[in-house]
Amino acid sequence: MNQSLEHKRHTLAHLLAAAVIDKYPHAKLTLGPAIETGFYYDVDFSGGDAPGDDDLKDLQKRMKKTINKWTEFTHEIVTADKAREVFADNEYKLELVNEIDERGESITLYTCGDFTDLCRGGHTENPKEEIAMDAFRLDKIAGAYWRGDEKNTMLTRIYGIAFDTKEELEEYNKMILEAKARDHRKLGKELDLFTFSDLVGSGLPLFTPNGTLMRDLIVEKIMKIQAKYGYKKVTIPHITKSDLYKTSGHWEKFGDELFKVKGQSDVEFVMKPMNCPHHTQIFASKPHSYKDLPIRYAESTMVYRDEQAGELMGLSRVRSITQDDGHVFCTLDQVDQEVENIVLVIKEFYDSLGMFSDDQFWVSLSVRNLEEPDEYLGDTRNWEKAEQMLDNVTRRLGLPSKQIAGEAAFYGPKIDFMFKDAIGREWQLATAQLDFVMPERFGLEYTDNEGNKQTPVMIHRAVAGSLERFMAVIIEHFAGNFPLWLAPQQVAIIPVSEAHNEYASEIFKSLQEAGLRVEMNDSSESMGKKIRQAKKMKLPYFIVIGDKEIETKTVTLESRDTGEPVVISVNELLDKLHTEMNV
Amino acid sequence: MNQSLEHKRHTLAHLLAAAVIDKYPHAKLTLGPAIETGFYYDVDFSGGDAPGDDDLKDLQKRMKKTINKWTEFTHEIVTADKAREVFADNEYKLELVNEIDERGESITLYTCGDFTDLCRGGHTENPKEEIAMDAFRLDKIAGAYWRGDEKNTMLTRIYGIAFDTKEELEEYNKMILEAKARDHRKLGKELDLFTFSDLVGSGLPLFTPNGTLMRDLIVEKIMKIQAKYGYKKVTIPHITKSDLYKTSGHWEKFGDELFKVKGQSDVEFVMKPMNCPHHTQIFASKPHSYKDLPIRYAESTMVYRDEQAGELMGLSRVRSITQDDGHVFCTLDQVDQEVENIVLVIKEFYDSLGMFSDDQFWVSLSVRNLEEPDEYLGDTRNWEKAEQMLDNVTRRLGLPSKQIAGEAAFYGPKIDFMFKDAIGREWQLATAQLDFVMPERFGLEYTDNEGNKQTPVMIHRAVAGSLERFMAVIIEHFAGNFPLWLAPQQVAIIPVSEAHNEYASEIFKSLQEAGLRVEMNDSSESMGKKIRQAKKMKLPYFIVIGDKEIETKTVTLESRDTGEPVVISVNELLDKLHTEMNV
Repeated sequence: MNQSLEHKRHTLAHLLAAAVIDKYPHAKLTLGPAIETGFYYDVDFSGGDAPGDDDLKDLQKRMKKTINKWTEFTHEIVTADKAREVFADNEYKLELVNEIDERGESITLYTCGDFTDLCRGGHTENPKEEIAMDAFRLDKIAGAYWRGDEKNTMLTRIYGIAFDTKEELEEYNKMILEAKARDHRKLGKELDLFTFSDLVGSGLPLFTPNGTLMRDLIVEKIMKIQAKYGYKKVTIPHITKSDLYKTSGHWEKFGDELFKVKGQSDVEFVMKPMNCPHHTQIFASKPHSYKDLPIRYAESTMVYRDEQAGELMGLSRVRSITQDDGHVFCTLDQVDQEVENIVLVIKEFYDSLGMFSDDQFWVSLSVRNLEEPDEYLGDTRNWEKAEQMLDNVTRRLGLPSKQIAGEAAFYGPKIDFMFKDAIGREWQLATAQLDFVMPERFGLEYTDNEGNKQTPVMIHRAVAGSLERFMAVIIEHFAGNFPLWLAPQQVAIIPVSEAHNEYASEIFKSLQEAGLRVEMNDSSESMGKKIRQAKKMKLPYFIVIGDKEIETKTVTLESRDTGEPVVISVNELLDKLHTEMNV
Repeated sequence: MNQSLEHKRHTLAHLLAAAVIDKYPHAKLTLGPAIETGFYYDVDFSGGDAPGDDDLKDLQKRMKKTINKWTEFTHEIVTADKAREVFADNEYKLELVNEIDERGESITLYTCGDFTDLCRGGHTENPKEEIAMDAFRLDKIAGAYWRGDEKNTMLTRIYGIAFDTKEELEEYNKMILEAKARDHRKLGKELDLFTFSDLVGSGLPLFTPNGTLMRDLIVEKIMKIQAKYGYKKVTIPHITKSDLYKTSGHWEKFGDELFKVKGQSDVEFVMKPMNCPHHTQIFASKPHSYKDLPIRYAESTMVYRDEQAGELMGLSRVRSITQDDGHVFCTLDQVDQEVENIVLVIKEFYDSLGMFSDDQFWVSLSVRNLEEPDEYLGDTRNWEKAEQMLDNVTRRLGLPSKQIAGEAAFYGPKIDFMFKDAIGREWQLATAQLDFVMPERFGLEYTDNEGNKQTPVMIHRAVAGSLERFMAVIIEHFAGNFPLWLAPQQVAIIPVSEAHNEYASEIFKSLQEAGLRVEMNDSSESMGKKIRQAKKMKLPYFIVIGDKEIETKTVTLESRDTGEPVVISVNELLDKLHTEMNV
């Protein structure tokens, strides 16, 4: 967000606060920042009436009226005592004032029109002139804990959406509508992909046959591609003694998010929040020579993280997370080739989804912040070499990349693939991360060509990332219209009437034997209804079988995407579908 | 075990006790029963010296000497006070005496030679004459808690092996030696199939690439077979709120074996010890008509049970158990066909392993004990019909079966497949169990053809059972010499020298492209060493490539099992291997 837009949004938060106080004089203001798509203000209404969604219109009207008097911001630096006097009735502002005071920073009050607020500044100079009143709207009301801590009071958060122009707002509104129509929770139900059960618990999805098929197709596609680069599947349990994470360092890092497991003995078990420590133990199970490297393990397996109930959402945020995980153990010199291979796997996979053109993703190359060398563990020369290798790979493969200093993990540099979906939202999905630290912590080693023990480098890599989140993303990206290879059912066969069932069955068998996921709808319902049913389930193709088709030994194929029926022979049909599947 | 043999073994336990008291007068005897292959006696040696393995020979000698005086057992019914007097120094026998007394049963002392013991009877009348002294041996010493409770004193258990004849003992000894050579823990390491890590914990195997490949081949084979019968894969998380098991009844049933899971909230989670309750929730996620039934879910997924550390053993007994699980929801009338289908899946799977001939398995048909009708839940007519159907299926399919009254679960009758392995040990592996109770508990329903709500029947079924235990069984059954389709690596290609590498590579590629798991050993080691290596890893085939093969465009194929080299063309080779794989 550019600074001018940020200033407008911040100004609108003030304007919202003024309207709130105007309508609800008992309200206590707390904090109101600019955010990604607009602004919000958190307010304590506990002293009287609180607004509902119905009141947003009125508040918006008040904002539009008030802004006419907002032609200039002034500010005043005040003493802490003065500020405490001004906000004597507002324990939230007092808490903020005390904190600023303790830090020895200056305290500023900003005023526009009749409204004054504790603020650090960053506003539009002349709101009346600069802010387009048709480029914002109040959006919704939600609950929010004071300072995000659930031990604190629950406040009312009023959200606003704001852009520079009316057109941008309209485009955003359209995108939001589109996002609602594509919502993976809604489509997941319609396409019967997954479900939740109150008895099992929130954030713990159950995948139906259709959803499981999609999961498996994704995992198999990735596995098939990476098998060409020497990845081998391994299998680990979902729990471990806490000792494993005390060694790896995850015990501290994951803290409250770790699910603790208690059996009948005193042994302290935990559910795995990630797989790398287990994989190190497979590597460590036998001695290795440099000739064995790189060793590459892959596994799609569930990890468990105790996300707060309020943060769970459909498949986007779950507690049982299937990671399409992989780990390479190699020498530093092998990193260049291994990362290239990982990128080639990512490319082939996303190409199969039509998601790898240059305008659909970019690569974030996360390196050290050179001004804070103490933040990073491991040999500086290794870091330099590794960062150089990552940079070389992205250049050599012509990836659109940005180097971002300070974004590296403490254990190594990484590349993240940022994908843009069909309605413009950006998602971090694939990644390759170097790790100089974990192999050391677990005492992993190989024997080099001179007989000396050496510590391998570890590369963590994900192609789809979390399968649940990935499914949420692609369900919404494709709006359920999955590419042929990924559609749970690919072709519906619809005989016009009972007389056509026999030939339809023959076609059904041919397609099924050719490995296609085909369903036959020979129910007694009308053809129109059967076609609507196939369309509702977003099947890539349906085939209508009537007299003509039987006579000419053909099928009439209709595509979900083009809508154009074509009359072709069964062999042509099989060719066409197989070609399309092997993208 | 026949009664006469049981009496011999029981008598030998007395004889052992007599020898123990002879050598260790301070020893306190506790209990000494006959068991599957012999007998044992649990003794408290804490008052002085305890025997080690080295002392077994001497004890055995004393037994053989003592028996000469054992020509007759006499017994005496005594009062509890008299018995308490006899065993005044032995708190274990006193405990037993008190218990018998409380139950109001008569207390008997059995005497043979100079030795008297508290006993219920069941001995050989004339031990000296009837027991062959070369048909038994003392086997080993182990620890055992008094009455199997780890809160009690640890005693010393001395095991003996005993049969009717010397020949039988020798056969048993041979079997034990063979079992040791086949021990899946030893072979698992040699063939690099799985490993354990102290940091991860006992009973939690980590599967290496080879072991994972085998697991996947087993699961895929079963899935492929059962897909023909309409089974669809589903996917569930490994934890659930305890509510699910409080509803299903497993909360009480599994008790201490349940791993409890604790997150940051107060919600009580547990790791799933079985999958059926989760699967009911997928069934319950949408309404069903009778036309949708049967609905069949399958999934290979890990369940977790907190077995006691002392009971864990290799893959035979683990805490993370992968169940090849499946559940059918159907009407009572559909049970016959569904059970037949399950048997056909089991047959096809075990046929592919060469384990389904009549002398390799039998079927235990577990039905109610009609004398205890209160033990079983559900409608009596349903039970009758279901038991009849199971009986019909086993007869119709010609399965060698035995009906066992009283072995049914409280929720329904079942059939269990008992397999005999290569060295004569019996394992319960596949199963199909009817369930009239769980669907009721979860309020599952479908609409029948008259529009009324009905409760479906549930069938639990397993083909391989626990994958870990199954792998332990087949590793030992095959002694690592897996059938071609199951071997992690199928063919090794061994060029005689560097000059043969190029042609060898061509062969390698042909085989790989044909989907075979092939490895090329073009290292600089000697051909002999390479062949030994392939044999050690128990590869079903290896191919030697030398001048002759290049000249004649053939390969020399040597089989692990027949050892006879054959010279064939590459096409013949592919045909041969593919035919063998599609058993």
